[in-house]
Amino acid sequence: MNGAHSLVHTLLQSGVDTCFANPGTSEMHFVAALDQIPGMRCVLGLQENVVTGMADGYWRMARKPACTLLHCGPGLANGLGNLHNARRARSGIVNVVGDQATYHRPYDAQLTADTEGWARPVSAWVRTSTAAANVGRDAAVAVQAARTAPGQIATLILPSDASWNEGGVVAEPLPVPAAAEPDPAAVRTVARILREKRNVLILLGGAALGEKGQELAWRIAQASGAKLLGEMSNARVSRGRGRPQLERVPYVADVAIQALAEFEHLILVNAKAPVGFFAYPGKPSLHYRPDAQLHVLSRHEQDAEAALAALAEELGAPHAAIPDPGPHPEPVRGAPTPEGLARTVAALMPEGAIISDESVSYGRGFYPQTHAAPPHDWLQLTGGAIGDGMPVATGAAIGAGGQRRVISLQADGSAMYTLQSLWTQARERLPVTTIIIANRKYQILLGEYLGVGANPGPTAMNMLDLGNPDLDWVKLAEGMGVEAARTESLDGLADLLAASLGRNGPFLIELLV
Amino acid sequence: MNGAHSLVHTLLQSGVDTCFANPGTSEMHFVAALDQIPGMRCVLGLQENVVTGMADGYWRMARKPACTLLHCGPGLANGLGNLHNARRARSGIVNVVGDQATYHRPYDAQLTADTEGWARPVSAWVRTSTAAANVGRDAAVAVQAARTAPGQIATLILPSDASWNEGGVVAEPLPVPAAAEPDPAAVRTVARILREKRNVLILLGGAALGEKGQELAWRIAQASGAKLLGEMSNARVSRGRGRPQLERVPYVADVAIQALAEFEHLILVNAKAPVGFFAYPGKPSLHYRPDAQLHVLSRHEQDAEAALAALAEELGAPHAAIPDPGPHPEPVRGAPTPEGLARTVAALMPEGAIISDESVSYGRGFYPQTHAAPPHDWLQLTGGAIGDGMPVATGAAIGAGGQRRVISLQADGSAMYTLQSLWTQARERLPVTTIIIANRKYQILLGEYLGVGANPGPTAMNMLDLGNPDLDWVKLAEGMGVEAARTESLDGLADLLAASLGRNGPFLIELLV
Repeated sequence: MNGAHSLVHTLLQSGVDTCFANPGTSEMHFVAALDQIPGMRCVLGLQENVVTGMADGYWRMARKPACTLLHCGPGLANGLGNLHNARRARSGIVNVVGDQATYHRPYDAQLTADTEGWARPVSAWVRTSTAAANVGRDAAVAVQAARTAPGQIATLILPSDASWNEGGVVAEPLPVPAAAEPDPAAVRTVARILREKRNVLILLGGAALGEKGQELAWRIAQASGAKLLGEMSNARVSRGRGRPQLERVPYVADVAIQALAEFEHLILVNAKAPVGFFAYPGKPSLHYRPDAQLHVLSRHEQDAEAALAALAEELGAPHAAIPDPGPHPEPVRGAPTPEGLARTVAALMPEGAIISDESVSYGRGFYPQTHAAPPHDWLQLTGGAIGDGMPVATGAAIGAGGQRRVISLQADGSAMYTLQSLWTQARERLPVTTIIIANRKYQILLGEYLGVGANPGPTAMNMLDLGNPDLDWVKLAEGMGVEAARTESLDGLADLLAASLGRNGPFLIELLV
Repeated sequence: MNGAHSLVHTLLQSGVDTCFANPGTSEMHFVAALDQIPGMRCVLGLQENVVTGMADGYWRMARKPACTLLHCGPGLANGLGNLHNARRARSGIVNVVGDQATYHRPYDAQLTADTEGWARPVSAWVRTSTAAANVGRDAAVAVQAARTAPGQIATLILPSDASWNEGGVVAEPLPVPAAAEPDPAAVRTVARILREKRNVLILLGGAALGEKGQELAWRIAQASGAKLLGEMSNARVSRGRGRPQLERVPYVADVAIQALAEFEHLILVNAKAPVGFFAYPGKPSLHYRPDAQLHVLSRHEQDAEAALAALAEELGAPHAAIPDPGPHPEPVRGAPTPEGLARTVAALMPEGAIISDESVSYGRGFYPQTHAAPPHDWLQLTGGAIGDGMPVATGAAIGAGGQRRVISLQADGSAMYTLQSLWTQARERLPVTTIIIANRKYQILLGEYLGVGANPGPTAMNMLDLGNPDLDWVKLAEGMGVEAARTESLDGLADLLAASLGRNGPFLIELLV
């Protein structure tokens, strides 16, 4: 058995059965092994940042890692942006990066690069498997690393001779360490704060944002009078009817500072204390009060739901009904507005929908309009590296088993980074409806530019405006095999969205705003 | 004066007047400075690998560095693939990477990443400018580093506070060190080898591949009986009528080994001894004879033309007429073949055309068919990281002052990596004709897969075939504002190509092969 076969068998036995791939020559023995050994679903992406973003979206829904197949250092480099986002999402991914044969590396052929050096900043675990006999063992460790709570990126670099040489050994799956138990002392301390103090915020992040975690947090908030918020950027939030009407820490510095000004105590549940997305002259980096006290209930590697359950018990918090969010929203008519778009999506989305949100500035107010939607999951850009919305939507559709409709709320500027995602959606006939929010500019940057205190002149506009020439998203989508239509009204959007939901495959709506 | 203004003034004074940009929030003060200070041409790319590839193509034609404007570590990461290619092309580039404010970095906000760590593997020079007072000085050093022979990548990381704080100081341009003089001892040694030995190859790379270098090398070859070859992957080669009919070291291992088998001595002129692009089981890494002797006439940091001139003088090599390559080629009719496509392009290209060649496997035989074309420059993928053809074409058009037609010979699979380039071509109305060679598969990988010794099954084909669904390049181009047409014949190609050459802007031809 060669190293590549031991790799595929080990991955499958360790529970990795999906491979997002963009292969090259040095991975041909791995591709052959994937071909010859049944069980791995291989999904091609036409650019590596699509591949890594799909692996991120897959984890967010499946809660188990997929592997990627990337080609040498530059192939990994092309996918680093969405690995950065995946690291911030705390998604588990096993990268398999084929590389030059061990003995060929010193000759510094064209594609030779510092693969390990590029991998390290996004990876919790990096290893180059230097011999066929080690590949299975290393793969099992990689999967274990990826599955270690809360989810990590493991990068296994596979020189081509380690892949093609005989002597491969299939490795047994390694135990997956459970998320760490909550710390009883932390639970008692937080309970005391909640009993004794006022102006307390419970900040939820990561694994605390599932349905159960939010229900427990709601009970605790009701019993203690504390307020609840989610972090600004969240990998996955259970939302809609039956879940608390949770809001996020705002993006805009002044708004965030104002929203957090009342809180003297912050209880962090798998969350970080809120800081600015960027610094601005004369504004503080920390968005909470300088005199606020931070109390960590649980860290990211800990079991957030167990911590919240222990806290609820410590407080004797009784069951608390989730408030009714009001009537099911109605679609909005007329010219597009952020609120109208959000309400229309809320009105039409089916129960169990998955929202992939890279709406950037346009979508900052989408949450309040969608509380009364049917229960759904909301996936968001976590690391700020734009270009993850469409790949995450694609991978999430696969990670959810193809049974749940994904609605991809996508700003046009960021959509252009990874538009190749649409081709994979067509190829795999995935249930994804993409709504391109086409303002034909980098709106967020225009806002930031005005914040610098100057009106943009022609040179600046040349770097902020996307309108010369206009992008035609209908043609771009059709060019990759995805049916598409354009509309300038919410009425049109509602019709197209409703029609798309029953399709056996993807659809794209270009909404001019 | 703030740091950003000192940066723009310093860049301009140092001769950098073109900025390929994909800005973000942390670069807004730099964008404002670019807007307020006249003189810098700013060209927007919709994804960073387009930006860095344009800077590579610009250098290859202009022989002076452009700067890039990239957004934080992930923005740099998105552009690393083509920086890898640019490093292999030995192109000079000044990357300006905006980043978190120095004091904000410890808070690890979403976009915070190991920017320096990602930059280092592609950069000869990396510096983070930590205070406004240093920005001008650091920028001058960056330009000096980029201009140091043969051309290097310099990455200046600009925290946003170093950009917005007052205290900026414009720096004087630093002297650009001339390419190192040839080594007289090396010249004498090589002359002796050429006089005394048979079966000698003179291998040209880098700066030796200009018109003058090739003319000198031809004289030397004629005087000594040595043979000439270019390296396998070359940033820019002067080609066509009036230049020697230079061939390259072949890509395919067996073919290369056979082509080099006769040579007992290799004279390296700004070239590396030929090694395999990849290793293959049972095949050697070195493609020249194990008993061949290597003789370095000049290294990459040395002046190749001066070295060749000294060698020609040492040998007393007389002027030697460049052989006539035969009649001007005629367009070929009928179904597309690699040879027919190359001859048709050779027949129609205008004098001074620039060829950007990312034709991958289809184009391996393009050289022999194009010797009799009018004089032109041929730019090639140098680092093997596919996705550089269209960005390099775009940047080359700008680097050549917009006066020379660029013909971009582009395989479809690799075109998908950076298709956003087309939008910049449309926006800047660049004289670029793109020929998409659409075989609807990763043909090079299919060939490599068969080399593994197995016929691909459905899983492998799912990773090697691009035909489900077919890409529609006419729609993709039109979606980005570039007029386009499709043809299945060389007759059709000839008509479309001829018509495109007179256009005031880009055009794309999808050639189904």
